[in-house]
Amino acid sequence: MPALIRTAQQLCRRGIATLGPKAPLGKQVLKEETTPALLEQLGFFHKTQSGLFHMLPLGMRTIGKLEGIIHAQLQANNDGELVALSSLSTRALWEATGRWANTELFKLKDSRKNEFCLVATCEEDITALLAQSITSYKDMPALVYQIGRKYRDELRPRSGLLRAREFVMMDAYSFAQDDAAAAKMFQDVNDTFAEVFHELKVPVVRAWADSGDIGGDQSIEYHLPLATGESTILTCDHGSCGHVATNEKAVSFPRQEAQAQGDVAVKYALSEDHATLVCFYYPDSRQLNWNLAKSAMEGDLDSALRERTNEQVLAQFQQENEDMMFSKIIRVMDCRIHSRSNFPDFPLRSYLKNNFGQIDGVSLVTAEDGEVCGVCNEGTLHAAKSIEVAHTFNLDTKYTKPLDVRYTDKNNSSVDNYVKMGCYGIGVTRVIASVAELLRDQHGLRWPAAIAPYRIAVVSNNRGENSNFDTVVKQLKTIPHLSTDIMSRQFPPSMSMGAQISLSHASGIPVTVIVGSRSWPRVEVEVRGRHWTHEGQPEPRWKQQYASLREKYNWDATTSKDAPFHEKHTVAHEHLPELLDILLADM
Amino acid sequence: MPALIRTAQQLCRRGIATLGPKAPLGKQVLKEETTPALLEQLGFFHKTQSGLFHMLPLGMRTIGKLEGIIHAQLQANNDGELVALSSLSTRALWEATGRWANTELFKLKDSRKNEFCLVATCEEDITALLAQSITSYKDMPALVYQIGRKYRDELRPRSGLLRAREFVMMDAYSFAQDDAAAAKMFQDVNDTFAEVFHELKVPVVRAWADSGDIGGDQSIEYHLPLATGESTILTCDHGSCGHVATNEKAVSFPRQEAQAQGDVAVKYALSEDHATLVCFYYPDSRQLNWNLAKSAMEGDLDSALRERTNEQVLAQFQQENEDMMFSKIIRVMDCRIHSRSNFPDFPLRSYLKNNFGQIDGVSLVTAEDGEVCGVCNEGTLHAAKSIEVAHTFNLDTKYTKPLDVRYTDKNNSSVDNYVKMGCYGIGVTRVIASVAELLRDQHGLRWPAAIAPYRIAVVSNNRGENSNFDTVVKQLKTIPHLSTDIMSRQFPPSMSMGAQISLSHASGIPVTVIVGSRSWPRVEVEVRGRHWTHEGQPEPRWKQQYASLREKYNWDATTSKDAPFHEKHTVAHEHLPELLDILLADM
Repeated sequence: MPALIRTAQQLCRRGIATLGPKAPLGKQVLKEETTPALLEQLGFFHKTQSGLFHMLPLGMRTIGKLEGIIHAQLQANNDGELVALSSLSTRALWEATGRWANTELFKLKDSRKNEFCLVATCEEDITALLAQSITSYKDMPALVYQIGRKYRDELRPRSGLLRAREFVMMDAYSFAQDDAAAAKMFQDVNDTFAEVFHELKVPVVRAWADSGDIGGDQSIEYHLPLATGESTILTCDHGSCGHVATNEKAVSFPRQEAQAQGDVAVKYALSEDHATLVCFYYPDSRQLNWNLAKSAMEGDLDSALRERTNEQVLAQFQQENEDMMFSKIIRVMDCRIHSRSNFPDFPLRSYLKNNFGQIDGVSLVTAEDGEVCGVCNEGTLHAAKSIEVAHTFNLDTKYTKPLDVRYTDKNNSSVDNYVKMGCYGIGVTRVIASVAELLRDQHGLRWPAAIAPYRIAVVSNNRGENSNFDTVVKQLKTIPHLSTDIMSRQFPPSMSMGAQISLSHASGIPVTVIVGSRSWPRVEVEVRGRHWTHEGQPEPRWKQQYASLREKYNWDATTSKDAPFHEKHTVAHEHLPELLDILLADM
Repeated sequence: MPALIRTAQQLCRRGIATLGPKAPLGKQVLKEETTPALLEQLGFFHKTQSGLFHMLPLGMRTIGKLEGIIHAQLQANNDGELVALSSLSTRALWEATGRWANTELFKLKDSRKNEFCLVATCEEDITALLAQSITSYKDMPALVYQIGRKYRDELRPRSGLLRAREFVMMDAYSFAQDDAAAAKMFQDVNDTFAEVFHELKVPVVRAWADSGDIGGDQSIEYHLPLATGESTILTCDHGSCGHVATNEKAVSFPRQEAQAQGDVAVKYALSEDHATLVCFYYPDSRQLNWNLAKSAMEGDLDSALRERTNEQVLAQFQQENEDMMFSKIIRVMDCRIHSRSNFPDFPLRSYLKNNFGQIDGVSLVTAEDGEVCGVCNEGTLHAAKSIEVAHTFNLDTKYTKPLDVRYTDKNNSSVDNYVKMGCYGIGVTRVIASVAELLRDQHGLRWPAAIAPYRIAVVSNNRGENSNFDTVVKQLKTIPHLSTDIMSRQFPPSMSMGAQISLSHASGIPVTVIVGSRSWPRVEVEVRGRHWTHEGQPEPRWKQQYASLREKYNWDATTSKDAPFHEKHTVAHEHLPELLDILLADM
């Protein structure tokens, strides 16, 4: 018996979704539960330990759809080559790039005492792998990527999949022969990322970012604006600027300089050679931004001492510089402080006045809402809370130098020809968790059609063989682009039609088809998905076609507020496929 | 620009397969290298450490195709629900089932000193997960499965992906309410496994097997016959029997009983209560089979003592049974030994004659080729070397009892209603590695069409834009069931046509389309894939259509021996798609 027919016969024999909910959740639960708790109770994910999750069938489908979009985009636009690197990476490789000391790595030993980590990212491994394939300029540019599990031993896992210890990530790595080619690749992959989020129809913002532990000069983060997010992005409102940056990277200036009359805070640091004591002065009411501090010193700062107390830094400075003849002191003044501000005492007694320097007028503190944009010096910065969902880095030679990956150029030389790398990550499970958080409402989840576990649910109070329900499901299953996207057998057999509808809405299925006995031969379609309107199209697309097709389809539409669904359509069942295409076009 | 058009324009701009070979491998290499080395050199996998591998683009495609077949079969036939469990499982769970002591588990601690293992199989985790979903008889039967990475800290990883420390496995778990439902599920999933291997068109044999560490009563292994395999299967040649079992499970009898005149070996063991000394006597020239020994004692044997020496077992027996009044001695005689055989001395001096028992006429040794089948007692057993690629277990309550997973029955009772489980594994990377080993020849790899990385390669000496090559590739890309299966851009731009053909054949691509300037407007097709003939069809299917379509397609065919390809077809290029369908139908 062909599989499809057998499946149709099994249709109503039993509810197959052992791992889904057995009953709809109560209104209070849908309204009050956190999004991670909703995802758990609706059968998307199951938490096993702090920061560790099993992915259940609905979650698998959602993740699978996002993965499909990423695969298609990277392969079509960037000739991405798909790999899957081992999850176990060796200590030797991570020591070569100085990252083995990272305390968030899960580490283990095999029975022969060899040491491994579970991969957190794969710069080391991919660089070592590509070193064997990229030997000539002809082998570049190239983009290699994978989608798989990554591990990070977070001390405080929280917010469900948003900050987990095992998570799914797409990580891509580019290889180019010079700065121009590397910049083009960086641009191209960032364009692809924008396409991916465009397909999801979620409002993602690009922000210039700090490259942190990964390294490199240029770095862009992708953020979903979300009031409950842990990040802050600052956007300049000046038309010709519009610069967006994370608060770790943003430079701001006060509306008027040197206005702060209050207490001044100081942070001591040392230059890279430890021969200069650097004193950063800034308003006590603000937060020192280490990136800005480092930038004020043109990078000449020992970041290893960043977390040390002022006392520890001073002690180290005095110990390493017994002869004060050769040591210097530099005072760096945030532009917000005033000469009459309340400065702390300077703690050193013996130093040479000639070795004393000062830098003025720089911005050292984390930007705040309402300040002046440090890029255009005109616009006002607006701060918004957000969640980071993707990150791209132009790495230059950070990994290829320590691992000695060079190529032969046209002149057959390989001296100093280090390959230029980029790396690019999309937090797959993080996107799912944050989109769920962004779009959920008091009625439950609400997925964009592109990553909904199913785009369509079909429900009925009679799901027996040869029922009208059976007819509708079979009809939809014959349509290739809809056939695998129909949730019809997942509800337990004894579940009432009302309960099926509630569960479909709560699970965030964009459209629910209701096959009722009274409306037949018409069916009802409740729309829970959000229509995304476009420029020049202030209304959902279906409204443009409503007048001309209404009669032909026997189609009525009403809209509703405050219900789990916001539109209800009734249509002749034979025209259901066309209506579904129209409705899903902008969801 | 739509992605497809852009891709076509990029077609010949550069070779994109950074991770593939840059030149074909020499004849000597193809002939003499081991299969794991071939898979590495042809760009399927890359070994990073003993037993650890990166999967490269060609390997990813091959694995992806096998995964696709498994997904489709399990979902259509068994309503399989797809999950992905965490790779990190807790010590507590594995201690509950007594498996934490396994020395082949990779173990690690997180920063809070919690202990985890990397999952080797997931019986513990799936049982704990389903315990929350399966609470009533209405929730069963159910099949839950995943395809993902598993970990085993093999002391001696070898043969590439055949015995790796990180590997891809499909593991499915079934849940049923009683023995009959569990047996049906076991049968159904085994039927699906047979379908999967049938699609691969490889000769897989089912053998009754020992359930080993996993547990349960019924167990079936799937084997690929292969002279270099590590396993041995024994097949009865009697028409009405045909029993197949692994040599760990097979029972055999000698052609004539009690013929062995040589030395007799003895193995001492203790009953479960340690009050009985069991002495197994068997021909010194043969190997004692512990499963048969245990079966002769009807299971009353302490397997923990299996690896102890005879001296250790005797010492323990005497120590624990100082009063010989209550201890017994049983002698179990393999049917091959003779009362006049050369027996070893009996080592105990003091025992009660009345407590002495004897079991005769059983088979205790590992079956050998040519012996009589122990199931039908008529046929002859034939031994063959093989590789195990899949394994199914009827587990009964082995995991649900210790983890206390019970269901409520129709009478609303849950007393002693332990859920009956089954588990089912297909070694995904193992299948790939063993099929490669089975079908490779002196010209390289040779894939069945179902899991070939690409089913079709298109090569030419002119791959420029608007070339004939371009025309052919575009034509094939418009055909949905072929469009994603064409290898055309993976060869470096400077590679000669002959080198492209060699590389395609060595990589095991079933058909290679050659767009040459001399044959145009006809194209040549070299067939490397193996045609699988069917009952009543002793010839490849294309031969049945050759006469009637020859003229219409302008089609010529010649066959060849000893070449990397065994057939060459020439056809009008506009009929290439039809010819490819005909050729691929039985490959």
